[in-house]
Amino acid sequence: MKHVQRLERDKNTMAEASVSPAHPFDSAVALVAKGEGVYEGHTSDDFWNFTGPFGGVTAATLLNAVMKHGKRIGTPVAMTVNYCAPVAKGAFTVTVREVRTNRSTQHWTIELSQPEAGVSVTATAVFAIRRETWSHVPGAMPQSPPPETLPKLPTRGLMEWMQAYDFRFARNMPAPPRPEPADDDLGPALSHVWMKMQPERPLDFLSLMAISDTFFGRIFHVRKSMIRIGTVSMTPYFHVDAEEIAAAGSDYLFGTADANVFNKGYSDQVAAMWSRSGRLVATSHQIVYFRS
Amino acid sequence: MKHVQRLERDKNTMAEASVSPAHPFDSAVALVAKGEGVYEGHTSDDFWNFTGPFGGVTAATLLNAVMKHGKRIGTPVAMTVNYCAPVAKGAFTVTVREVRTNRSTQHWTIELSQPEAGVSVTATAVFAIRRETWSHVPGAMPQSPPPETLPKLPTRGLMEWMQAYDFRFARNMPAPPRPEPADDDLGPALSHVWMKMQPERPLDFLSLMAISDTFFGRIFHVRKSMIRIGTVSMTPYFHVDAEEIAAAGSDYLFGTADANVFNKGYSDQVAAMWSRSGRLVATSHQIVYFRS
Repeated sequence: MKHVQRLERDKNTMAEASVSPAHPFDSAVALVAKGEGVYEGHTSDDFWNFTGPFGGVTAATLLNAVMKHGKRIGTPVAMTVNYCAPVAKGAFTVTVREVRTNRSTQHWTIELSQPEAGVSVTATAVFAIRRETWSHVPGAMPQSPPPETLPKLPTRGLMEWMQAYDFRFARNMPAPPRPEPADDDLGPALSHVWMKMQPERPLDFLSLMAISDTFFGRIFHVRKSMIRIGTVSMTPYFHVDAEEIAAAGSDYLFGTADANVFNKGYSDQVAAMWSRSGRLVATSHQIVYFRS
Repeated sequence: MKHVQRLERDKNTMAEASVSPAHPFDSAVALVAKGEGVYEGHTSDDFWNFTGPFGGVTAATLLNAVMKHGKRIGTPVAMTVNYCAPVAKGAFTVTVREVRTNRSTQHWTIELSQPEAGVSVTATAVFAIRRETWSHVPGAMPQSPPPETLPKLPTRGLMEWMQAYDFRFARNMPAPPRPEPADDDLGPALSHVWMKMQPERPLDFLSLMAISDTFFGRIFHVRKSMIRIGTVSMTPYFHVDAEEIAAAGSDYLFGTADANVFNKGYSDQVAAMWSRSGRLVATSHQIVYFRS
Protein backbone atom coordinates (compact mmCIF):
# COMPACT_ATOMS: atom_id res chain seq x y z
CA MET A 1 0.00 0.00 0.00
CA LYS A 2 2.72 2.45 0.99
CA HIS A 3 4.72 1.34 -2.01
CA VAL A 4 1.76 2.04 -4.31
CA GLN A 5 1.23 5.48 -2.83
CA ARG A 6 4.88 6.30 -3.31
CA LEU A 7 4.72 5.17 -6.92
CA GLU A 8 1.69 7.40 -7.49
CA ARG A 9 3.45 10.38 -6.00
CA ASP A 10 6.49 9.76 -8.16
CA LYS A 11 4.31 9.53 -11.23
CA ASN A 12 2.57 12.79 -10.42
CA THR A 13 5.88 14.51 -9.88
CA MET A 14 7.15 13.21 -13.19
CA ALA A 15 4.05 14.34 -15.04
CA GLU A 16 4.30 17.80 -13.54
CA ALA A 17 7.98 18.17 -14.20
CA SER A 18 7.69 16.74 -17.72
CA VAL A 19 10.77 14.62 -17.07
CA SER A 20 9.59 12.25 -19.81
CA PRO A 21 6.99 12.98 -22.50
CA ALA A 22 3.70 12.70 -20.62
CA HIS A 23 0.95 10.33 -21.75
CA PRO A 24 -1.70 12.38 -23.63
CA PHE A 25 -4.22 11.49 -20.93
CA ASP A 26 -1.96 12.85 -18.18
CA SER A 27 -1.52 16.05 -20.16
CA ALA A 28 -5.28 16.32 -20.64
CA VAL A 29 -6.07 16.04 -16.92
CA ALA A 30 -3.08 18.12 -15.76
CA LEU A 31 -3.77 20.96 -13.35
CA VAL A 32 -1.64 23.76 -11.99
CA ALA A 33 -2.37 24.85 -8.41
CA LYS A 34 -3.27 28.55 -8.19
CA GLY A 35 -4.11 28.69 -4.50
CA GLU A 36 -5.90 26.69 -1.81
CA GLY A 37 -8.40 24.54 -3.75
CA VAL A 38 -8.05 26.49 -7.00
CA TYR A 39 -6.50 24.89 -10.08
CA GLU A 40 -6.04 25.87 -13.68
CA GLY A 41 -6.35 23.40 -16.55
CA HIS A 42 -6.69 23.44 -20.32
CA THR A 43 -8.85 21.40 -22.67
CA SER A 44 -7.00 18.82 -24.77
CA ASP A 45 -7.48 18.49 -28.52
CA ASP A 46 -6.51 14.82 -28.14
CA PHE A 47 -9.78 14.17 -26.30
CA TRP A 48 -12.17 16.36 -28.28
CA ASN A 49 -15.77 15.19 -28.69
CA PHE A 50 -18.60 16.71 -30.77
CA THR A 51 -19.09 20.06 -29.06
CA GLY A 52 -16.53 20.03 -26.26
CA PRO A 53 -13.97 17.85 -24.51
CA PHE A 54 -14.85 14.19 -23.88
CA GLY A 55 -16.85 14.20 -20.62
CA GLY A 56 -14.83 11.35 -19.15
CA VAL A 57 -11.66 13.42 -19.29
CA THR A 58 -13.45 16.43 -17.82
CA ALA A 59 -14.68 14.24 -14.96
CA ALA A 60 -11.16 12.86 -14.46
CA THR A 61 -9.79 16.40 -14.35
CA LEU A 62 -12.23 17.33 -11.58
CA LEU A 63 -11.27 14.18 -9.71
CA ASN A 64 -7.60 15.07 -10.19
CA ALA A 65 -8.22 18.38 -8.42
CA VAL A 66 -9.32 16.49 -5.29
CA MET A 67 -6.49 13.93 -5.65
CA LYS A 68 -3.97 16.78 -5.68
CA HIS A 69 -5.52 18.63 -2.73
CA GLY A 70 -3.26 18.68 0.32
CA LYS A 71 -6.10 17.82 2.70
CA ARG A 72 -7.35 14.80 0.78
CA ILE A 73 -7.60 11.53 2.69
CA GLY A 74 -8.10 8.07 1.16
CA THR A 75 -9.33 7.27 -2.32
CA PRO A 76 -12.58 8.01 -4.20
CA VAL A 77 -15.63 5.90 -3.40
CA ALA A 78 -18.32 7.90 -5.25
CA MET A 79 -18.38 10.92 -7.50
CA THR A 80 -21.24 12.65 -9.27
CA VAL A 81 -20.48 14.90 -12.22
CA ASN A 82 -23.19 17.19 -13.65
CA TYR A 83 -22.62 18.59 -17.11
CA CYS A 84 -24.39 21.95 -17.07
CA ALA A 85 -23.04 23.39 -20.35
CA PRO A 86 -20.32 22.59 -22.90
CA VAL A 87 -16.78 23.37 -21.78
CA ALA A 88 -15.25 25.78 -24.31
CA LYS A 89 -11.87 25.10 -25.87
CA GLY A 90 -9.11 26.67 -23.80
CA ALA A 91 -8.26 27.33 -20.18
CA PHE A 92 -10.56 26.62 -17.27
CA THR A 93 -10.55 26.89 -13.49
CA VAL A 94 -11.38 24.03 -11.16
CA THR A 95 -12.46 25.05 -7.65
CA VAL A 96 -12.53 22.45 -4.91
CA ARG A 97 -14.15 22.76 -1.50
CA GLU A 98 -13.59 20.35 1.38
CA VAL A 99 -17.07 20.16 2.90
CA ARG A 100 -16.43 17.73 5.70
CA THR A 101 -13.74 15.33 6.87
CA ASN A 102 -14.71 12.53 9.23
CA ARG A 103 -12.46 9.84 10.69
CA SER A 104 -12.42 7.74 7.52
CA THR A 105 -14.61 9.61 5.00
CA GLN A 106 -14.34 12.96 3.30
CA HIS A 107 -16.84 15.01 1.28
CA TRP A 108 -15.97 17.44 -1.50
CA THR A 109 -17.73 19.75 -3.92
CA ILE A 110 -16.03 20.71 -7.18
CA GLU A 111 -16.83 23.17 -9.98
CA LEU A 112 -15.34 23.89 -13.38
CA SER A 113 -15.74 27.42 -14.68
CA GLN A 114 -14.52 29.61 -17.51
CA PRO A 115 -14.46 33.42 -17.58
CA GLU A 116 -17.06 33.79 -20.33
CA ALA A 117 -19.06 30.60 -19.95
CA GLY A 118 -19.47 30.62 -16.16
CA VAL A 119 -19.89 27.32 -14.32
CA SER A 120 -20.20 24.46 -16.81
CA VAL A 121 -19.61 21.42 -14.56
CA THR A 122 -20.50 20.73 -10.92
CA ALA A 123 -19.51 17.67 -8.95
CA THR A 124 -19.51 16.08 -5.53
CA ALA A 125 -17.07 13.41 -4.39
CA VAL A 126 -16.82 11.06 -1.44
CA PHE A 127 -13.39 9.78 -0.47
CA ALA A 128 -12.65 7.11 2.12
CA ILE A 129 -9.83 5.32 3.82
CA ARG A 130 -10.79 1.74 3.08
CA ARG A 131 -9.93 -1.14 5.35
CA GLU A 132 -10.07 -4.91 5.00
CA THR A 133 -13.58 -6.24 5.75
CA TRP A 134 -15.75 -9.20 4.91
CA SER A 135 -15.99 -9.20 1.11
CA HIS A 136 -18.55 -10.63 -1.29
CA VAL A 137 -19.07 -9.94 -4.99
CA PRO A 138 -22.40 -11.14 -6.40
CA GLY A 139 -21.71 -9.12 -9.57
CA ALA A 140 -19.56 -11.65 -11.42
CA MET A 141 -17.93 -10.78 -14.75
CA PRO A 142 -19.89 -12.31 -17.65
CA GLN A 143 -18.18 -15.04 -19.67
CA SER A 144 -16.53 -13.62 -22.76
CA PRO A 145 -13.93 -14.53 -25.39
CA PRO A 146 -10.56 -12.86 -24.62
CA PRO A 147 -9.97 -9.49 -26.29
CA GLU A 148 -7.16 -10.81 -28.49
CA THR A 149 -9.68 -13.04 -30.33
CA LEU A 150 -12.06 -10.13 -31.05
CA PRO A 151 -11.78 -7.45 -33.75
CA LYS A 152 -10.73 -3.99 -32.72
CA LEU A 153 -13.41 -1.36 -33.37
CA PRO A 154 -12.27 0.84 -36.27
CA THR A 155 -12.20 4.43 -34.98
CA ARG A 156 -10.36 6.16 -37.84
CA GLY A 157 -12.25 9.29 -38.85
CA LEU A 158 -14.36 9.27 -35.69
CA MET A 159 -14.05 11.71 -32.79
CA GLU A 160 -10.61 12.49 -31.43
CA TRP A 161 -11.18 11.00 -27.98
CA MET A 162 -12.07 7.63 -29.50
CA GLN A 163 -8.54 7.36 -30.92
CA ALA A 164 -7.31 7.09 -27.32
CA TYR A 165 -9.11 3.78 -26.71
CA ASP A 166 -8.95 0.24 -28.02
CA PHE A 167 -12.52 -1.16 -27.99
CA ARG A 168 -13.25 -4.84 -28.67
CA PHE A 169 -16.91 -5.73 -28.51
CA ALA A 170 -17.84 -9.16 -27.22
CA ARG A 171 -21.59 -8.50 -27.51
CA ASN A 172 -23.69 -6.03 -29.48
CA MET A 173 -20.94 -4.50 -31.62
CA PRO A 174 -22.36 -1.26 -33.04
CA ALA A 175 -23.32 -1.57 -36.70
CA PRO A 176 -22.57 1.22 -39.19
CA PRO A 177 -25.17 3.88 -38.36
CA ARG A 178 -28.29 4.01 -40.54
CA PRO A 179 -29.50 7.35 -41.86
CA GLU A 180 -32.82 6.95 -40.02
CA PRO A 181 -33.55 5.30 -36.64
CA ALA A 182 -34.45 1.62 -36.95
CA ASP A 183 -37.65 1.96 -34.97
CA ASP A 184 -39.24 -1.15 -36.48
CA ASP A 185 -36.12 -3.18 -35.78
CA LEU A 186 -34.78 -2.05 -32.39
CA GLY A 187 -31.54 -3.54 -31.12
CA PRO A 188 -30.75 -4.54 -27.53
CA ALA A 189 -29.32 -1.88 -25.21
CA LEU A 190 -26.88 -4.27 -23.50
CA SER A 191 -23.34 -4.43 -24.80
CA HIS A 192 -20.13 -6.12 -23.60
CA VAL A 193 -16.81 -4.57 -24.52
CA TRP A 194 -13.12 -4.97 -23.70
CA MET A 195 -11.42 -1.60 -23.52
CA LYS A 196 -8.07 -0.07 -22.76
CA MET A 197 -6.17 3.08 -23.40
CA GLN A 198 -3.82 3.42 -26.37
CA PRO A 199 -0.98 4.07 -25.89
CA GLU A 200 -1.18 1.88 -22.82
CA ARG A 201 -1.29 3.47 -19.39
CA PRO A 202 -1.59 1.78 -15.96
CA LEU A 203 -5.08 2.06 -14.51
CA ASP A 204 -5.60 4.58 -11.72
CA PHE A 205 -8.66 6.40 -10.42
CA LEU A 206 -8.34 9.11 -13.06
CA SER A 207 -8.27 6.76 -16.04
CA LEU A 208 -10.98 4.58 -14.46
CA MET A 209 -13.17 7.66 -14.11
CA ALA A 210 -12.60 8.51 -17.78
CA ILE A 211 -13.14 5.00 -19.12
CA SER A 212 -16.43 4.73 -17.22
CA ASP A 213 -17.74 7.39 -19.62
CA THR A 214 -16.56 5.70 -22.84
CA PHE A 215 -19.64 3.51 -23.32
CA PHE A 216 -21.47 4.61 -26.43
CA GLY A 217 -24.93 6.09 -26.06
CA ARG A 218 -27.31 3.20 -25.50
CA ILE A 219 -29.64 4.82 -28.03
CA PHE A 220 -27.08 4.17 -30.80
CA HIS A 221 -27.26 0.44 -30.08
CA VAL A 222 -31.05 0.44 -29.83
CA ARG A 223 -32.01 2.70 -32.75
CA LYS A 224 -28.90 1.89 -34.84
CA SER A 225 -28.60 5.52 -35.85
CA MET A 226 -26.73 8.61 -34.70
CA ILE A 227 -29.09 10.52 -32.41
CA ARG A 228 -27.88 13.71 -30.78
CA ILE A 229 -27.26 12.92 -27.11
CA GLY A 230 -25.47 14.39 -24.13
CA THR A 231 -24.68 13.06 -20.67
CA VAL A 232 -26.41 15.27 -18.12
CA SER A 233 -25.22 13.60 -14.92
CA MET A 234 -22.90 10.68 -14.20
CA THR A 235 -22.17 8.80 -10.97
CA PRO A 236 -19.42 6.21 -10.85
CA TYR A 237 -18.84 4.15 -7.70
CA PHE A 238 -15.30 2.88 -7.17
CA HIS A 239 -15.14 -0.56 -5.58
CA VAL A 240 -11.38 -0.85 -5.10
CA ASP A 241 -8.61 0.93 -3.24
CA ALA A 242 -5.25 2.11 -4.58
CA GLU A 243 -3.58 -1.27 -4.22
CA GLU A 244 -6.41 -3.15 -5.92
CA ILE A 245 -6.63 -0.68 -8.79
CA ALA A 246 -2.89 -0.86 -9.38
CA ALA A 247 -3.23 -4.64 -9.78
CA ALA A 248 -5.24 -4.06 -12.97
CA GLY A 249 -2.11 -2.69 -14.64
CA SER A 250 -2.48 -1.47 -18.20
CA ASP A 251 -4.44 -4.52 -19.35
CA TYR A 252 -7.97 -4.46 -20.81
CA LEU A 253 -11.01 -3.80 -18.62
CA PHE A 254 -14.21 -5.66 -19.40
CA GLY A 255 -17.29 -3.44 -19.41
CA THR A 256 -21.02 -4.00 -19.59
CA ALA A 257 -23.52 -1.23 -20.24
CA ASP A 258 -27.30 -1.37 -20.42
CA ALA A 259 -30.36 0.90 -20.28
CA ASN A 260 -33.74 0.55 -18.59
CA VAL A 261 -35.64 3.40 -20.17
CA PHE A 262 -35.84 6.02 -22.90
CA ASN A 263 -38.68 8.42 -22.13
CA LYS A 264 -39.47 12.09 -22.74
CA GLY A 265 -35.97 13.07 -23.77
CA TYR A 266 -33.92 11.15 -21.20
CA SER A 267 -32.47 7.67 -20.89
CA ASP A 268 -30.40 5.93 -18.25
CA GLN A 269 -27.22 3.90 -18.52
CA VAL A 270 -26.04 1.29 -16.02
CA ALA A 271 -22.46 0.10 -16.48
CA ALA A 272 -19.95 -2.12 -14.71
CA MET A 273 -16.22 -2.64 -15.23
CA TRP A 274 -14.00 -5.57 -14.27
CA SER A 275 -10.24 -6.06 -14.52
CA ARG A 276 -9.24 -8.97 -16.75
CA SER A 277 -8.74 -11.11 -13.65
CA GLY A 278 -12.44 -10.65 -12.87
CA ARG A 279 -12.27 -8.04 -10.11
CA LEU A 280 -15.18 -5.59 -10.18
CA VAL A 281 -13.43 -2.21 -10.15
CA ALA A 282 -16.35 0.19 -10.70
CA THR A 283 -20.02 0.53 -11.50
CA SER A 284 -21.33 3.67 -13.15
CA HIS A 285 -24.68 5.30 -13.80
CA GLN A 286 -25.65 8.05 -16.21
CA ILE A 287 -28.69 10.00 -17.20
CA VAL A 288 -28.49 11.04 -20.85
CA TYR A 289 -30.44 13.60 -22.81
CA PHE A 290 -31.53 12.57 -26.29
CA ARG A 291 -33.00 14.64 -29.02
CA SER A 292 -36.38 13.67 -30.37
CA MET B 1 -50.62 18.85 -17.08
CA LYS B 2 -51.79 22.32 -16.08
CA HIS B 3 -54.46 20.70 -13.94
CA VAL B 4 -51.81 18.60 -12.17
CA GLN B 5 -49.64 21.63 -11.53
CA ARG B 6 -52.58 23.52 -10.07
CA LEU B 7 -53.42 20.59 -7.78
CA GLU B 8 -49.80 20.49 -6.60
CA ARG B 9 -49.85 24.21 -5.83
CA ASP B 10 -53.08 23.86 -3.92
CA LYS B 11 -51.64 21.02 -1.90
CA ASN B 12 -48.54 23.01 -1.05
CA THR B 13 -50.66 25.95 0.01
CA MET B 14 -52.80 23.72 2.16
CA ALA B 15 -49.79 22.11 3.83
CA GLU B 16 -48.28 25.47 4.59
CA ALA B 17 -51.47 26.98 5.95
CA SER B 18 -52.38 23.78 7.86
CA VAL B 19 -55.94 24.10 6.58
CA SER B 20 -56.42 20.36 7.17
CA PRO B 21 -54.24 18.04 9.25
CA ALA B 22 -51.21 17.48 7.02
CA HIS B 23 -49.98 13.99 6.16
CA PRO B 24 -47.02 13.17 8.46
CA PHE B 25 -44.77 13.01 5.39
CA ASP B 26 -45.77 16.50 4.28
CA SER B 27 -45.08 17.80 7.79
CA ALA B 28 -41.68 16.08 7.77
CA VAL B 29 -40.55 17.67 4.48
CA ALA B 30 -42.14 21.07 5.17
CA LEU B 31 -39.94 24.13 4.75
CA VAL B 32 -40.41 27.79 5.56
CA ALA B 33 -38.77 30.28 3.20
CA LYS B 34 -36.33 32.58 4.99
CA GLY B 35 -35.00 34.42 1.97
CA GLU B 36 -33.88 33.78 -1.61
CA GLY B 37 -32.87 30.10 -1.63
CA VAL B 38 -32.81 29.74 2.15
CA TYR B 39 -35.34 27.55 3.96
CA GLU B 40 -35.84 26.39 7.49
CA GLY B 41 -37.06 22.90 8.37
CA HIS B 42 -37.26 20.61 11.36
CA THR B 43 -36.59 16.90 11.79
CA SER B 44 -39.66 14.72 12.30
CA ASP B 45 -39.92 12.12 15.05
CA ASP B 46 -42.33 10.21 12.79
CA PHE B 47 -39.43 9.39 10.46
CA TRP B 48 -36.65 8.75 12.94
CA ASN B 49 -34.03 6.12 12.08
CA PHE B 50 -31.17 4.75 14.23
CA THR B 51 -29.02 7.85 14.67
CA GLY B 52 -30.88 10.55 12.76
CA PRO B 53 -33.85 11.15 10.50
CA PHE B 54 -34.58 8.58 7.76
CA GLY B 55 -32.32 9.57 4.84
CA GLY B 56 -35.14 9.32 2.32
CA VAL B 57 -37.09 12.06 4.08
CA THR B 58 -33.97 14.21 4.36
CA ALA B 59 -33.42 13.79 0.60
CA ALA B 60 -37.07 14.64 -0.07
CA THR B 61 -36.73 17.77 2.07
CA LEU B 62 -33.75 18.93 0.01
CA LEU B 63 -35.70 18.23 -3.16
CA ASN B 64 -38.63 20.16 -1.72
CA ALA B 65 -36.38 23.22 -1.36
CA VAL B 66 -35.78 23.21 -5.12
CA MET B 67 -39.44 22.46 -5.89
CA LYS B 68 -40.46 25.52 -3.86
CA HIS B 69 -37.85 27.82 -5.42
CA GLY B 70 -39.38 30.59 -7.51
CA LYS B 71 -36.90 30.12 -10.36
CA ARG B 72 -37.38 26.36 -10.69
CA ILE B 73 -38.29 25.06 -14.15
CA GLY B 74 -39.58 21.58 -14.96
CA THR B 75 -39.34 18.49 -12.79
CA PRO B 76 -36.42 16.51 -11.34
CA VAL B 77 -34.49 14.18 -13.62
CA ALA B 78 -31.51 13.35 -11.39
CA MET B 79 -30.48 14.13 -7.86
CA THR B 80 -27.44 13.08 -5.85
CA VAL B 81 -27.56 13.30 -2.08
CA ASN B 82 -24.38 12.90 -0.01
CA TYR B 83 -24.78 12.14 3.68
CA CYS B 84 -21.74 13.73 5.29
CA ALA B 85 -22.78 13.43 8.95
CA PRO B 86 -25.92 12.62 10.96
CA VAL B 87 -28.57 15.34 11.03
CA ALA B 88 -29.25 16.23 14.67
CA LYS B 89 -32.77 16.33 16.04
CA GLY B 90 -34.22 19.81 15.66
CA ALA B 91 -34.18 22.71 13.26
CA PHE B 92 -32.01 22.89 10.15
CA THR B 93 -31.36 25.24 7.26
CA VAL B 94 -31.52 24.21 3.61
CA THR B 95 -29.62 26.45 1.21
CA VAL B 96 -30.28 26.19 -2.50
CA ARG B 97 -28.19 27.65 -5.32
CA GLU B 98 -29.32 27.87 -8.93
CA VAL B 99 -26.08 27.07 -10.78
CA ARG B 100 -27.30 27.27 -14.34
CA THR B 101 -30.56 27.43 -16.25
CA ASN B 102 -30.58 26.40 -19.90
CA ARG B 103 -33.52 26.33 -22.28
CA SER B 104 -34.95 23.08 -20.92
CA THR B 105 -32.55 22.00 -18.14
CA GLN B 106 -31.58 23.48 -14.82
CA HIS B 107 -28.78 22.66 -12.39
CA TRP B 108 -28.90 23.16 -8.62
CA THR B 109 -26.69 22.60 -5.61
CA ILE B 110 -28.25 22.15 -2.17
CA GLU B 111 -26.89 21.92 1.37
CA LEU B 112 -28.39 21.14 4.75
CA SER B 113 -26.68 22.67 7.76
CA GLN B 114 -27.24 23.11 11.47
CA PRO B 115 -25.65 25.75 13.70
CA GLU B 116 -23.57 23.32 15.75
CA ALA B 117 -23.12 20.42 13.34
CA GLY B 118 -22.18 22.42 10.24
CA VAL B 119 -23.00 20.99 6.80
CA SER B 120 -24.32 17.45 7.12
CA VAL B 121 -25.85 16.88 3.67
CA THR B 122 -24.82 18.08 0.20
CA ALA B 123 -26.76 17.50 -3.00
CA THR B 124 -26.94 18.35 -6.67
CA ALA B 125 -30.09 18.22 -8.75
CA VAL B 126 -30.90 18.37 -12.44
CA PHE B 127 -34.37 19.53 -13.45
CA ALA B 128 -35.80 19.47 -16.95
CA ILE B 129 -38.84 20.43 -18.93
CA ARG B 130 -39.64 17.08 -20.51
CA ARG B 131 -41.33 16.76 -23.87
CA GLU B 132 -42.89 13.89 -25.75
CA THR B 133 -40.24 11.85 -27.65
CA TRP B 134 -39.72 8.37 -28.98
CA SER B 135 -40.07 6.09 -25.96
CA HIS B 136 -38.79 2.61 -25.21
CA VAL B 137 -38.56 0.75 -21.90
CA PRO B 138 -36.32 -2.33 -21.94
CA GLY B 139 -36.52 -2.44 -18.12
CA ALA B 140 -39.81 -4.33 -17.74
CA MET B 141 -41.37 -4.92 -14.33
CA PRO B 142 -40.71 -8.49 -13.14
CA GLN B 143 -43.72 -10.79 -12.82
CA SER B 144 -45.02 -10.87 -9.28
CA PRO B 145 -48.13 -11.86 -7.32
CA PRO B 146 -50.27 -8.81 -6.49
CA PRO B 147 -49.57 -7.15 -3.11
CA GLU B 148 -52.97 -8.13 -1.68
CA THR B 149 -51.96 -11.81 -1.84
CA LEU B 150 -48.69 -11.23 0.06
CA PRO B 151 -48.17 -10.79 3.81
CA LYS B 152 -47.44 -7.32 5.13
CA LEU B 153 -44.03 -7.04 6.76
CA PRO B 154 -44.50 -6.65 10.52
CA THR B 155 -42.82 -3.40 11.55
CA ARG B 156 -44.11 -3.03 15.12
CA GLY B 157 -41.22 -2.24 17.45
CA LEU B 158 -38.89 -1.38 14.56
CA MET B 159 -37.67 2.11 13.65
CA GLU B 160 -40.20 4.93 13.52
CA TRP B 161 -39.83 5.61 9.78
CA MET B 162 -40.74 2.02 8.96
CA GLN B 163 -44.19 2.55 10.47
CA ALA B 164 -44.88 4.95 7.59
CA TYR B 165 -44.63 2.22 4.94
CA ASP B 166 -46.50 -0.93 3.99
CA PHE B 167 -43.93 -3.43 2.64
CA ARG B 168 -44.96 -6.70 0.99
CA PHE B 169 -42.09 -8.83 -0.18
CA ALA B 170 -42.57 -10.89 -3.32
CA ARG B 171 -38.99 -12.24 -3.25
CA ASN B 172 -36.34 -12.55 -0.54
CA MET B 173 -38.44 -11.49 2.44
CA PRO B 174 -35.98 -10.66 5.23
CA ALA B 175 -35.83 -13.38 7.88
CA PRO B 176 -35.63 -12.52 11.59
CA PRO B 177 -32.04 -11.34 12.06
CA ARG B 178 -29.54 -13.86 13.44
CA PRO B 179 -27.20 -12.82 16.26
CA GLU B 180 -24.16 -13.50 14.05
CA PRO B 181 -23.72 -13.03 10.27
CA ALA B 182 -24.56 -16.17 8.29
CA ASP B 183 -21.29 -16.18 6.39
CA ASP B 184 -21.42 -19.92 5.62
CA ASP B 185 -24.97 -19.57 4.33
CA LEU B 186 -25.19 -16.25 2.43
CA GLY B 187 -28.53 -15.15 1.04
CA PRO B 188 -29.14 -13.45 -2.30
CA ALA B 189 -28.92 -9.66 -2.46
CA LEU B 190 -31.86 -9.28 -4.86
CA SER B 191 -35.28 -8.58 -3.37
CA HIS B 192 -38.69 -7.70 -4.84
CA VAL B 193 -41.11 -5.69 -2.74
CA TRP B 194 -44.42 -3.89 -3.08
CA MET B 195 -44.44 -0.71 -1.04
CA LYS B 196 -46.65 2.23 -0.28
CA MET B 197 -47.07 4.89 2.30
CA GLN B 198 -49.44 4.46 5.24
CA PRO B 199 -51.60 6.42 5.64
CA GLU B 200 -51.92 6.58 1.87
CA ARG B 201 -50.63 9.60 0.00
CA PRO B 202 -50.61 10.24 -3.77
CA LEU B 203 -47.18 9.74 -5.31
CA ASP B 204 -45.20 12.85 -6.20
CA PHE B 205 -41.50 13.54 -6.65
CA LEU B 206 -40.99 14.06 -2.93
CA SER B 207 -42.51 10.75 -1.86
CA LEU B 208 -40.82 8.96 -4.77
CA MET B 209 -37.47 10.34 -3.61
CA ALA B 210 -38.16 9.09 -0.08
CA ILE B 211 -39.40 5.65 -1.09
CA SER B 212 -36.33 5.11 -3.26
CA ASP B 213 -34.35 5.02 0.01
CA THR B 214 -36.60 2.53 1.82
CA PHE B 215 -34.90 -0.62 0.50
CA PHE B 216 -33.24 -2.43 3.38
CA GLY B 217 -29.46 -2.68 3.42
CA ARG B 218 -28.53 -5.43 0.98
CA ILE B 219 -26.13 -6.74 3.59
CA PHE B 220 -29.08 -7.67 5.86
CA HIS B 221 -30.45 -9.92 3.10
CA VAL B 222 -27.03 -11.43 2.36
CA ARG B 223 -25.63 -11.95 5.86
CA LYS B 224 -29.07 -12.37 7.54
CA SER B 225 -27.90 -10.28 10.47
CA MET B 226 -28.04 -6.64 11.56
CA ILE B 227 -24.78 -5.03 10.48
CA ARG B 228 -24.23 -1.34 11.15
CA ILE B 229 -24.57 0.48 7.83
CA GLY B 230 -25.09 3.99 6.51
CA THR B 231 -25.87 5.37 3.08
CA VAL B 232 -23.00 7.59 2.02
CA SER B 233 -24.32 8.78 -1.34
CA MET B 234 -27.54 8.18 -3.24
CA THR B 235 -28.53 9.03 -6.82
CA PRO B 236 -32.10 8.50 -8.01
CA TYR B 237 -33.04 9.12 -11.63
CA PHE B 238 -36.66 10.07 -12.26
CA HIS B 239 -38.05 8.64 -15.49
CA VAL B 240 -41.46 10.35 -15.49
CA ASP B 241 -42.87 13.85 -15.58
CA ALA B 242 -45.53 15.37 -13.30
CA GLU B 243 -48.44 13.96 -15.29
CA GLU B 244 -46.98 10.44 -15.41
CA ILE B 245 -46.14 10.43 -11.70
CA ALA B 246 -49.63 11.59 -10.78
CA ALA B 247 -51.03 8.59 -12.67
CA ALA B 248 -49.45 6.29 -10.06
CA GLY B 249 -51.90 7.66 -7.47
CA SER B 250 -51.55 6.29 -3.95
CA ASP B 251 -51.31 2.67 -5.06
CA TYR B 252 -48.37 0.35 -4.36
CA LEU B 253 -45.06 0.73 -6.18
CA PHE B 254 -43.13 -2.39 -7.10
CA GLY B 255 -39.42 -2.20 -6.28
CA THR B 256 -36.39 -4.31 -6.99
CA ALA B 257 -33.05 -3.85 -5.25
CA ASP B 258 -29.78 -5.68 -5.75
CA ALA B 259 -26.07 -5.36 -5.01
CA ASN B 260 -22.96 -6.09 -7.06
CA VAL B 261 -20.26 -5.85 -4.45
CA PHE B 262 -19.35 -5.67 -0.77
CA ASN B 263 -15.66 -4.78 -0.43
CA LYS B 264 -13.46 -2.95 2.06
CA GLY B 265 -16.30 -1.32 3.95
CA TYR B 266 -18.57 -0.29 1.07
CA SER B 267 -21.33 -1.90 -0.95
CA ASP B 268 -23.55 -0.71 -3.77
CA GLN B 269 -27.29 -0.88 -4.26
CA VAL B 270 -29.09 -0.78 -7.59
CA ALA B 271 -32.85 -0.29 -7.38
CA ALA B 272 -35.80 0.26 -9.71
CA MET B 273 -39.41 1.22 -9.03
CA TRP B 274 -42.53 0.71 -11.16
CA SER B 275 -46.11 1.83 -10.68
CA ARG B 276 -48.59 -1.03 -10.41
CA SER B 277 -49.51 -0.53 -14.05
CA GLY B 278 -45.90 -1.38 -14.97
CA ARG B 279 -44.52 2.09 -15.67
CA LEU B 280 -40.87 2.49 -14.65
CA VAL B 281 -40.97 5.62 -12.49
CA ALA B 282 -37.41 5.72 -11.12
CA THR B 283 -34.12 3.90 -10.80
CA SER B 284 -31.82 4.58 -7.88
CA HIS B 285 -28.25 3.88 -6.90
CA GLN B 286 -26.55 4.00 -3.53
CA ILE B 287 -23.15 3.46 -2.04
CA VAL B 288 -23.39 2.20 1.51
CA TYR B 289 -20.82 2.02 4.28
CA PHE B 290 -20.84 -1.16 6.34
CA ARG B 291 -19.00 -1.92 9.52
CA SER B 292 -16.62 -4.83 9.56
